[in-house]
Amino acid sequence: MFSNPTCLIFGKDTIKRIGKEIKKRGVKNVLVLYGSGSIFKNGVYDAAVKSLKDNEVGFVQLGGIKPNPVLSKVYEGIKTAMKEKTDGILAIGGGSVIDTAKAIAAGIGYDGDVWDLFEGKAPVKTNVPIFTILTISATGSEMNNGAVITNEGENKKWSIGSPDLFPKASIIDPSVQFSLPWNQTANGAVDAITHVLELYFDKTENNMIMDEYSHAIVKTVLKSTDLLMKNPSDYDARANLALSATLALNKTNSVGRQGGDWSSHWIEHSLSAFYDVAHGAGLAIVMPAWMDYVYAECIHKWVVFAESIFGITAGTPDEKAKAGIAELRKFYKKIQQPTKLSEINVPYEDLPKIAANASMKGKIGNIKRLDQNDILNILKLAY
Amino acid sequence: MFSNPTCLIFGKDTIKRIGKEIKKRGVKNVLVLYGSGSIFKNGVYDAAVKSLKDNEVGFVQLGGIKPNPVLSKVYEGIKTAMKEKTDGILAIGGGSVIDTAKAIAAGIGYDGDVWDLFEGKAPVKTNVPIFTILTISATGSEMNNGAVITNEGENKKWSIGSPDLFPKASIIDPSVQFSLPWNQTANGAVDAITHVLELYFDKTENNMIMDEYSHAIVKTVLKSTDLLMKNPSDYDARANLALSATLALNKTNSVGRQGGDWSSHWIEHSLSAFYDVAHGAGLAIVMPAWMDYVYAECIHKWVVFAESIFGITAGTPDEKAKAGIAELRKFYKKIQQPTKLSEINVPYEDLPKIAANASMKGKIGNIKRLDQNDILNILKLAY
Repeated sequence: MFSNPTCLIFGKDTIKRIGKEIKKRGVKNVLVLYGSGSIFKNGVYDAAVKSLKDNEVGFVQLGGIKPNPVLSKVYEGIKTAMKEKTDGILAIGGGSVIDTAKAIAAGIGYDGDVWDLFEGKAPVKTNVPIFTILTISATGSEMNNGAVITNEGENKKWSIGSPDLFPKASIIDPSVQFSLPWNQTANGAVDAITHVLELYFDKTENNMIMDEYSHAIVKTVLKSTDLLMKNPSDYDARANLALSATLALNKTNSVGRQGGDWSSHWIEHSLSAFYDVAHGAGLAIVMPAWMDYVYAECIHKWVVFAESIFGITAGTPDEKAKAGIAELRKFYKKIQQPTKLSEINVPYEDLPKIAANASMKGKIGNIKRLDQNDILNILKLAY
Repeated sequence: MFSNPTCLIFGKDTIKRIGKEIKKRGVKNVLVLYGSGSIFKNGVYDAAVKSLKDNEVGFVQLGGIKPNPVLSKVYEGIKTAMKEKTDGILAIGGGSVIDTAKAIAAGIGYDGDVWDLFEGKAPVKTNVPIFTILTISATGSEMNNGAVITNEGENKKWSIGSPDLFPKASIIDPSVQFSLPWNQTANGAVDAITHVLELYFDKTENNMIMDEYSHAIVKTVLKSTDLLMKNPSDYDARANLALSATLALNKTNSVGRQGGDWSSHWIEHSLSAFYDVAHGAGLAIVMPAWMDYVYAECIHKWVVFAESIFGITAGTPDEKAKAGIAELRKFYKKIQQPTKLSEINVPYEDLPKIAANASMKGKIGNIKRLDQNDILNILKLAY
């Protein structure tokens, strides 16, 4: 079953449309969420607020949401929303801000501790409408129904999902990303590629349309990231990267698959639950190591990957698969992402702790079921 | 702006879910539309009716909808729906049946002659929910908001569109298409390819993600149609063709484009307004001729098309473009589609009449604006 009701508004100078989108859905007073405050420098905040005012939408603000967003901030948002009687949420930022918005919406709809929902103790239900203005393309959260939050007290970086969590409308103006620091653009590219590949590498056979669709997204991310290294203000490259990141995880790419293999995300979440590593950077380290460890289980898929994405035509299946993985690492290095745990100062002696965290809910993975020891082996490969 | 709220339910043995989908949206009594009656032979009707009964959804029936669906049938459907006080429509069939359902829904929502809406005299608004069970993959109508109807009295094959016309839920069980006559499978493949290419060939530059997405769909249609010629009951090939046809025109492929160039559809509609030619067969004739006539206006796009779809690497740009068009015609011949008007017994002396019909609303096209004389030239090339 595929369904995605989010209305995507994409292009230059579209932020001014947010007020109308909110108003036409009968929402009168929104909780505006944001992160570090870069939106005050690049004009995004001013454009959004003007549009809210022009459309007589009231608002209260809550800033300071950090990458790898935390549960305490979600509690704070729920409290503010209840106190101020807001009837909708506007997230202005990247995945962290949007995921926080979703968790707040879920929390408002639940009569208990919102973390219960992450623990799977109750289903997520909410009627709080979510709107977003995206300022960094990476997670795809602007057009999907999932959210990842870190319970900082328990070192758990876990997720929720529900049909109620699709944003009603999301605005993507790629030009606001011209001023992003390079590492954020690159982190986003890695995140998008990883999402595609985690859906691509499962044991589904003959899903040609979705495999070709995956190739389309990955090739476009590679090409546009490359162009952006040369010119961060290349609008067409920003637009291609932005739309690719959205499509990478808007559920389309899941159709006819077995749900994918999310081991890399799962392991990375354990990594960023302990260390302040950017999610994309963590994935650039973990996924190639995961591939090294599991590709032999489903080698023909890695052969097609190597051929289709990197044009590798020579060699045995094993050589092609390895060459494909090597090309991916090479690309990550080229865009200045770390590819080893040692590069981000994770102590070697911490690896068992990370492996234990990642296997907290039992075995993970689809290509190969991974237990704690497998995960430790992957972390060692990644070191 | 991209938005598509249709819930797609895809896979083997999914028809039995229709009753629940209708019931959960509060609909109590549906008008069931169908075509020639093949649904009584392949089990689709029985499965659908059982599901309606199991979920206590009442229904009245209206069959006999033909390919190139006509306005008189729309009037009949509106009358039946009003008389029987149905509160939803279930279309079981292909694009003709679904388009008729949309036109009936639009007509119920309009206080006047439904044809006014096709003439653009009033906006399309309706609150009649539409559900579909797809039995032939071709038009993409199961997941879009457009409908094409022929006003047989005036020889006008025209369209409507509205956000209100997206089906609420559409069920696609590719296995019910095993028993399709070959020409219907092939017509559907041509229609899907044409939809993709009419969006692909406009003057938009650097929309890499959507261009790659277009290549993904066309390549999958070519490959799966080929497989189905050998084995019409190849489930994976049916599923790939079905999903590709849906994605070809569910609006995704329009993101960031200038709306495409629909000259081929427009000319074909004039053709099938006069003659009883299958829509796909008409397109197999018209589109390559249109390409012959206009490719020089935007030759670099035809070069990429030839390279990406057919792997053509040798030659000048002009030679590559021509080779790509030749490969497309070759494929259509291979799947037993006509590629010349003379093959379907259109009298040569009728060409001016067809050209006049196709330019009834003025010039058409984006790659090249075509007047009546241009269209006549294309028809001559197609003869």
